[in-house]
Amino acid sequence: MKDMRIKQLIESIEGAGLDAYMVTMDPNIIYYAGTISGGILIVSPEAEPFLLASRLNFSIAQDQATGCEVKPYIRKDKLEKITVILNELNPKKIGFDELSLDLYKDLGKRLKDVELKAAPDVVMDMRRVKDTKEQGLMRRAAELADIGMEAIRQFLREGVREYEVAAEASYAMRREGAEERAFPFIVASGLRSAYPHAGVTDRRIKRGDFVTVDMGATYHEYQSDLTRTFIMGVPSDEQRAIYDVVLEANEVALAEIQSGAAGVKVDRIARGIIESEGYGDYFIHGLGHGVGLEIHEPPSLSKTSEDILKVGNVVTDEPGIYIPGFGGVRIEDTVLVTDSGPNRLTRFDKDIDAMCV
Amino acid sequence: MKDMRIKQLIESIEGAGLDAYMVTMDPNIIYYAGTISGGILIVSPEAEPFLLASRLNFSIAQDQATGCEVKPYIRKDKLEKITVILNELNPKKIGFDELSLDLYKDLGKRLKDVELKAAPDVVMDMRRVKDTKEQGLMRRAAELADIGMEAIRQFLREGVREYEVAAEASYAMRREGAEERAFPFIVASGLRSAYPHAGVTDRRIKRGDFVTVDMGATYHEYQSDLTRTFIMGVPSDEQRAIYDVVLEANEVALAEIQSGAAGVKVDRIARGIIESEGYGDYFIHGLGHGVGLEIHEPPSLSKTSEDILKVGNVVTDEPGIYIPGFGGVRIEDTVLVTDSGPNRLTRFDKDIDAMCV
Repeated sequence: MKDMRIKQLIESIEGAGLDAYMVTMDPNIIYYAGTISGGILIVSPEAEPFLLASRLNFSIAQDQATGCEVKPYIRKDKLEKITVILNELNPKKIGFDELSLDLYKDLGKRLKDVELKAAPDVVMDMRRVKDTKEQGLMRRAAELADIGMEAIRQFLREGVREYEVAAEASYAMRREGAEERAFPFIVASGLRSAYPHAGVTDRRIKRGDFVTVDMGATYHEYQSDLTRTFIMGVPSDEQRAIYDVVLEANEVALAEIQSGAAGVKVDRIARGIIESEGYGDYFIHGLGHGVGLEIHEPPSLSKTSEDILKVGNVVTDEPGIYIPGFGGVRIEDTVLVTDSGPNRLTRFDKDIDAMCV
Repeated sequence: MKDMRIKQLIESIEGAGLDAYMVTMDPNIIYYAGTISGGILIVSPEAEPFLLASRLNFSIAQDQATGCEVKPYIRKDKLEKITVILNELNPKKIGFDELSLDLYKDLGKRLKDVELKAAPDVVMDMRRVKDTKEQGLMRRAAELADIGMEAIRQFLREGVREYEVAAEASYAMRREGAEERAFPFIVASGLRSAYPHAGVTDRRIKRGDFVTVDMGATYHEYQSDLTRTFIMGVPSDEQRAIYDVVLEANEVALAEIQSGAAGVKVDRIARGIIESEGYGDYFIHGLGHGVGLEIHEPPSLSKTSEDILKVGNVVTDEPGIYIPGFGGVRIEDTVLVTDSGPNRLTRFDKDIDAMCV
């Protein structure tokens, strides 16, 4: 599997007119070399792939990495080792997924007459199409998020604190096999629900609150992303109106998550529903983003997206309305594009009655 | 408090010969502006500080930020807004803590005749000295890590899986007020204990295993870092020998974490103990690193450190021995430098009898 991916990467490198490629992002090292060691993977059509791993992670890299030769570096000789490997390839143009400013400058000085070119799509065009095995891992990551959300529904009551809510979900997911949470929990209660990225505080949850919970699980390095907004008690008319609009946008957009659909169009359809109800100014982010080894990756569903959905893409569908001084609602699922249409990986309830506690 | 910090930042900016400074790292935005919104904080001696926040986080920035004016940006106009604010300052030399390669290049094109200079020390020299309030938060973050480790000691037994171990610690810390874990858990059992950065798997823990647990809590944005190695059953002679050497290195180094001590010297003392017992080749990382709003920050205790410890620094003390094919031990505390010597913030037991379960 890993070898096939590297072969495909080499084709993409050649297709992009590059002589060599430096893979530096951890999720890309996992994808191509199968190890969590990090490091720098150097791939070219002319030579065997090399993974340079820090001395700290050399042992795990040796045990886990497939399809490449592993060499250790220490901080002092890292730059020198990269340079030697690259110079042997005698390249004119070297692509990379991401470089720190320091490494970019340092390599630029050492590699005379070589163009260093950011070319993240060379890897991301592969990563955004999930194969069958990846789809299975993402399905399990999504199930684990559902398990976490159910633990919250059981636990949530007036007087509990936001961090206690996160504790229950984290525990439920990890007990069932999540190695990690996918990203920092968001438990946004009361007026804080008007913040899309609210974090977690020690605020006590009160009757009448919206409580927006945004969370995900990591399963075998793959992530899921799930948001639900609970309502503490009987919703007010305005709470119900907002909830209904967001839910409609979420459901109508879900049906549009199809192979061949433009990301900009799926966003526009959801946005149109929210705008037509007069809440357009309060939907302050894109509809969705790709998910996989990273929690945010291509393709995107947004006003500025240039992406066209393909079978094997996994994206979020997460409209929201955020009214400062009042509160907010977001409803988000992780969705797989299949050749028979959208397949919702997160399955948690979303009708308003199921969300009132 | 925040205003005082910005005043001190302005003095440092002037001292470094800079006309303006761009704060882009989230922990630095928390430190100077008091908000988790992220964004870009632009500070100069000549004008009021500006925080540019994404539209998504504009509301939380407005509510939380102190000592600066908050303006929103959208992706399309971000570069333009930064440029306008900076150009009004008419600067020759602009410092920054960190810039992505893209932003560095884009700003370079727009800001003609302006030097963009990486100057992270301007902020880190302040952040590495924790004030009384920060020390209190870090003390609590360390207590929470201790609570997590105690939950593990209660739970750990043959047959449980690594992810279940992490689940218990995460739950205990979060229930008591941690908003997050400080960094991804490490539960490295059996041969995996020879990997310093092992992550968490579904491996079942067996009699005779070393189980190294490395974890920390986040409390009001401040982090802690704690490692202990448990032994499943009665330690073998070699296990005991390794454990004893690491513990001695940890304890001798602890006493050296004093104001005025060189980071390189503290590392050398710990390393000397491990080398003298013949395990020098297996201690494959530095002795310690600073902790605060980030889990790795200055000052460092290592072979290449140029830091001198000061009162208010918080550093880890974490010698380790990692023998591929056998296993490893690491013992780590988070330590505050006070004017009366080292103050160990993580208090969990470390004598070998307390670690055998």
